[in-house]
Amino acid sequence: MADLKSTFLKVYSALKAELLEDPAFEFTPDSRQWVERMLDYNVPGGKLNRGLSVIDSYKLLKEGKELTEEEIFLASVLGWCIEWLQAYFLVLDDIMDNSHTRRGQPCWFRVPKVGMIAANDGVVLRNHIPRILRKHFRGKLYYVDLLDLFNEVEFQTASGQMIDLITTLEGEKELSKYTLSLYRRIVQYKTAYYSFYLPVACALLISGENLDKHNDVKDVLVEMGTYFQVQDDYLDCFGDPATIGKIGTDIEDFKCSWLVVKTLELCNEEQKKLLCESYGKADPESVAKVKAIYNELNLKGVFEEYESKSYEKLISSIEAHPSKAVQAVLKSFLAKIYKRQK
Amino acid sequence: MADLKSTFLKVYSALKAELLEDPAFEFTPDSRQWVERMLDYNVPGGKLNRGLSVIDSYKLLKEGKELTEEEIFLASVLGWCIEWLQAYFLVLDDIMDNSHTRRGQPCWFRVPKVGMIAANDGVVLRNHIPRILRKHFRGKLYYVDLLDLFNEVEFQTASGQMIDLITTLEGEKELSKYTLSLYRRIVQYKTAYYSFYLPVACALLISGENLDKHNDVKDVLVEMGTYFQVQDDYLDCFGDPATIGKIGTDIEDFKCSWLVVKTLELCNEEQKKLLCESYGKADPESVAKVKAIYNELNLKGVFEEYESKSYEKLISSIEAHPSKAVQAVLKSFLAKIYKRQK
Repeated sequence: MADLKSTFLKVYSALKAELLEDPAFEFTPDSRQWVERMLDYNVPGGKLNRGLSVIDSYKLLKEGKELTEEEIFLASVLGWCIEWLQAYFLVLDDIMDNSHTRRGQPCWFRVPKVGMIAANDGVVLRNHIPRILRKHFRGKLYYVDLLDLFNEVEFQTASGQMIDLITTLEGEKELSKYTLSLYRRIVQYKTAYYSFYLPVACALLISGENLDKHNDVKDVLVEMGTYFQVQDDYLDCFGDPATIGKIGTDIEDFKCSWLVVKTLELCNEEQKKLLCESYGKADPESVAKVKAIYNELNLKGVFEEYESKSYEKLISSIEAHPSKAVQAVLKSFLAKIYKRQK
Repeated sequence: MADLKSTFLKVYSALKAELLEDPAFEFTPDSRQWVERMLDYNVPGGKLNRGLSVIDSYKLLKEGKELTEEEIFLASVLGWCIEWLQAYFLVLDDIMDNSHTRRGQPCWFRVPKVGMIAANDGVVLRNHIPRILRKHFRGKLYYVDLLDLFNEVEFQTASGQMIDLITTLEGEKELSKYTLSLYRRIVQYKTAYYSFYLPVACALLISGENLDKHNDVKDVLVEMGTYFQVQDDYLDCFGDPATIGKIGTDIEDFKCSWLVVKTLELCNEEQKKLLCESYGKADPESVAKVKAIYNELNLKGVFEEYESKSYEKLISSIEAHPSKAVQAVLKSFLAKIYKRQK
């Protein structure tokens, strides 16, 4: 596992070196140094789950046939493209949310001398993806499908982010907007497509598959991505801060969390009134009142019920798939997240 | 001419309608309305020169053969993609520069309730381009070349913007960085590729040409884009505010303008000292001192000399081109900008 990750990180270094010598741009020494620092700060420091899962999925699709070095390399390149995409979203999201820290360090735009240049750096990160794809995949039959795929998923993510931003508009704290259907829509577009569908779609493309024939795979992965986000929202309130590595603030931040959406669905008038008064406030008393309502409604139990129902549904969708190799890919994703504590 | 523009604007409405029904995303009524307002505010309100020049160039490449309605439509679609690209850059640039107005109205991020959502709107604008291209060009032989072209030009623009931003870094007012070679590099990447090369490259692609065989065309257009920016910098100081429609502030803003770069090249030690003390300051006395140096060095004359030299060089490069149709395209661009007063 550590070995896998270090091989993967070597590919990062190779891609970075190529980008810093891209013939489409004449770097000045200052700008080359800037890009290198910006990449090192923002791209490789995450858990790399999305990127690594391209390689895992590709292996499973090959049904035990050993991958060549070249094949592992190409899967890693696509994995890194997803990590680059993620870095681009995070750099811009942190500016929009006025966040302070990310992955245990100050957000990029808060680094001295960076400031608003970070917005352009986000754009540069995004632009690296087609540069990388062109360099390594231009001659492949599936090159145009790869471009279309990344374009479509980026569009969906930006659109999901948009509905999230406009429903959580500052100064319009109106809980009645938070419905389960809106929640699902935000999660599906903002997170599930790029985090769950994209890695598998990349693996399918390099395996020579036609994505148009795999809408069922997309549906399962989008469902899994939704389940993953529900877990995230649950852990934000009920998880162990020591285990998840942060203290949740969804209640204080007026987030459209699965917990508040469920509460609005299940609560009585009195609880609703109290929730409206307390949700989105930073003082500990208000937060405690919201948590008390969550407990009155037994949201832990509601979540556990949701979790096992989701699991059963996902397993039966997966087992309905004609290909055992595809089943293995989907089950491997599910195994990684089912009943996770962090 | 007015007719041409109104036909072009009809294509905008058609593209907008398609984007608002894009099957890759399930709009909520709020988000559909948001996108519509955002597009109307940011996309069609400019001079539309870049977009319209795709159609002009295509006509000239067809050497008088009447274009079909379908051909005009496709050229217009590509023209709008360039306008979308421009809107995306401007929305983000205005955030980064903390600007106030754009095209005679408040910058998008300054509109009430928009704020930092504008950064994501910029991303959405950018994502519309591949959606439009896919819808209208997916079946064409040159589809992949179109995607590569837009990707490469966007990468170059973002990279040019990056060197501009890091050399003009706040708090590091150091004139010695402003050299002619840096100036040319910023202008070439940040402006010339997307404003001059991209429209013609689009016209060449839909005419069935292979862009790899047209590096000479690229070189001429990049040179023309540089000349255009030099004019811009000249007019910022010496143009008639009533004619150009704004009061220039490049001196106050410590801009890496062609005028200051030329001054640094031509001045003596005393003038340099005075320039360093006065450039980038907002008070009228400092501005007047800088302008006095410009006049001492006869920058008007230096500019006129540059202008005629540029023109001769461009004309002879153009006339060296084997195709009369391509010559016509390039000459038409040059005629539009030579000795312009606004």
